[in-house]
Amino acid sequence: MPDHDTDPFVRAAPFSAADRDAVYRAIETRRDVRDEFLPDPLPAETVQRLLSAAHHAPSVGFMQPWNFTLVAAEETRARVHAAFERANAEAALMFSGEQQTRYRSLKLEGIRKAPLSICVTCDPTRGGAVVLGRTHNPRMDVYSTVCAVQNLWLAARAEGIGVGWVSIFHDSDLRAILQMPPHVEIVAWLCLGRVETLYREPELAVKGWRQRLPLEDLVFSERWGNLSVEAASE
Amino acid sequence: MPDHDTDPFVRAAPFSAADRDAVYRAIETRRDVRDEFLPDPLPAETVQRLLSAAHHAPSVGFMQPWNFTLVAAEETRARVHAAFERANAEAALMFSGEQQTRYRSLKLEGIRKAPLSICVTCDPTRGGAVVLGRTHNPRMDVYSTVCAVQNLWLAARAEGIGVGWVSIFHDSDLRAILQMPPHVEIVAWLCLGRVETLYREPELAVKGWRQRLPLEDLVFSERWGNLSVEAASE
Repeated sequence: MPDHDTDPFVRAAPFSAADRDAVYRAIETRRDVRDEFLPDPLPAETVQRLLSAAHHAPSVGFMQPWNFTLVAAEETRARVHAAFERANAEAALMFSGEQQTRYRSLKLEGIRKAPLSICVTCDPTRGGAVVLGRTHNPRMDVYSTVCAVQNLWLAARAEGIGVGWVSIFHDSDLRAILQMPPHVEIVAWLCLGRVETLYREPELAVKGWRQRLPLEDLVFSERWGNLSVEAASE
Repeated sequence: MPDHDTDPFVRAAPFSAADRDAVYRAIETRRDVRDEFLPDPLPAETVQRLLSAAHHAPSVGFMQPWNFTLVAAEETRARVHAAFERANAEAALMFSGEQQTRYRSLKLEGIRKAPLSICVTCDPTRGGAVVLGRTHNPRMDVYSTVCAVQNLWLAARAEGIGVGWVSIFHDSDLRAILQMPPHVEIVAWLCLGRVETLYREPELAVKGWRQRLPLEDLVFSERWGNLSVEAASE
């Protein structure tokens, strides 16, 4: 219950330059890790801090729709890896010619190499039938869950832990392996492990798959398609 | 193009304790702001840093599907606010009795009070017909866009700027006001403005709407529903 004797507000000044830079450094040097994982198990207290960071994500109507299923057992990770292999074989066939060859040369997961996986799910029933803020956009619960993933990812960067999000699965395969009930939605399969190095730039850029777009091409002023940025922020 | 003469890897040690704490502080003190916005316009270079943080989000196949439409014009924000009012009147009727009374007492947006709004959208055509990593989960592009929102939100906290995500709209209303093409998906309407104070705890908790759940109830080990956490992270 809220305590009405305590001021519910706190000062929210800008961070010091050093602290601000730390936040930007986490954001800018975070990578989607596939192959740089070290095998050492992660300390339980570190994993707990990452989960707490995820749990501090924004959520629509404060519904906190997320669950985190931690998978360290090698046998389970081997089964998940087999599910990836099956889906990835199908995925490769969707690309043609030279692009398919390049697709097949990429490592797209670290399920067995990383010592810990976390399956992040969204329970749409968490907040009851009507959820404040979800009345006109039913996907807001999943968006909240994705915010939890990104919080965890940035905290992990600060901890020297790499994270890779693997998305090439048939949903039904993961659901069967983890015994997920039908009403729960699987949002992310994350691989986590300590890293000593990361790619300087996103791996897909380094490997020539696709380059970073100029930010100025993506920002519009006042309405869709109007590229003059400066006016809007003055 | 990648430069093969340069080592593509950099050291990725854990941050110093102070830097790590700064990242956690951004995560833990970030709030969904509705009423604490100050009216001063945001400096263009600060907005640029926030957009760059968003642009450094992870994206499936490095497709970078996001666009950011900055809306500062009062007239446009008034139209968006009217769209909110219409949807929110419908939303209130979905709650009954005492809960409806409490719903009506909450301030759920800062569209006119905050000097800047940013509409964050996802363009599913950005990466071509087949996108690496989106082959088995077509929603990965929207998830990438949500990660961009969370990056921006955390960077804003470090800058002393509050952000509020407003989700109570008919999609068609926003689309018409901003002249969005039909293939683009609206993901978030964000209100931004300088703040001097923030709620100590999430506003919906302070106001008694819903409290933070115990994290330990949300973490499973090895399979869905298995609550013994410690085993999985050792």
